[in-house]
Amino acid sequence: MPGSGSQVTPSHPDLARLAFLFGTWKGQGSGRYPTISPFEYLEESSFNPGPGKPFVTYRQRTRRVGNGEPLHSETGYIRTTDPDRIELVIAQPIGIVEVHTGEIDGSRIRFRSESVGLSPTAIEVSRVERRIEVTGDTMRYQLGMAAVGQPLQTHLEAELIRL
Amino acid sequence: MPGSGSQVTPSHPDLARLAFLFGTWKGQGSGRYPTISPFEYLEESSFNPGPGKPFVTYRQRTRRVGNGEPLHSETGYIRTTDPDRIELVIAQPIGIVEVHTGEIDGSRIRFRSESVGLSPTAIEVSRVERRIEVTGDTMRYQLGMAAVGQPLQTHLEAELIRL
Repeated sequence: MPGSGSQVTPSHPDLARLAFLFGTWKGQGSGRYPTISPFEYLEESSFNPGPGKPFVTYRQRTRRVGNGEPLHSETGYIRTTDPDRIELVIAQPIGIVEVHTGEIDGSRIRFRSESVGLSPTAIEVSRVERRIEVTGDTMRYQLGMAAVGQPLQTHLEAELIRL
Repeated sequence: MPGSGSQVTPSHPDLARLAFLFGTWKGQGSGRYPTISPFEYLEESSFNPGPGKPFVTYRQRTRRVGNGEPLHSETGYIRTTDPDRIELVIAQPIGIVEVHTGEIDGSRIRFRSESVGLSPTAIEVSRVERRIEVTGDTMRYQLGMAAVGQPLQTHLEAELIRL
């Protein structure tokens, strides 16, 4: 069901202020970093309220524009804590986990990493910022990253539409 | 489709030695820890090969026996690295992330946490061990945990059947 009517009713009252995220999103993004070639990607993400619990389940998958090759996946949860703060935990199959705290401002969220955990074979990522903004059924996000000795800078930008 | 025929063909050749995990699993477990009352839970978990990538996507949900109340969720990835080692990353909506290394011995895996990341409001967990053993279509696992000042000890034990 397209349009804002597709927003899922929150299953826990604390999630009402995150309802603007709910649903499945599709769109396109671009990536860049000083150490890699720029690339374009297709993305499908979902944000769904936890079953009866004050958290949101997040899943993301991307593919390369052109050949559809799978690129990245990640999954995690947004947890509501007190009225002013939320927390985000993320796991990535490239051996990276992130713990963030964030603030909600209307339908904008800014997450900053509190810690980044790395498996022995992961690339070195030291800091991540994730900004999400929803306007109606359009989501825009930017992901900033300090990694492999480079300072914090924009790595990913994407625009998604709610299905 | 019940029985071993339900095993999914690995989508990446490095995943062949993890094929014993693949599928959706249902069963029951019990939890205990010095700081809480013992409890029984129903579980549904899945381990599915990543789309064309050398990782396995893991998702778990549990409910309380009796009233079906949602208890725990977690999600993450198992990553194959070299022939002798694998890695596991997990995110939990209670503000916890885990990075593990593990060894495979036939259809047994033992993961030990390399690091545990905590959000500002999470309970203090310092170390986790996860053992998984699959015999045919039966999975048994134990989760050991050092948390809230207690030494490493068994927290969860469960037995699941492949659907």
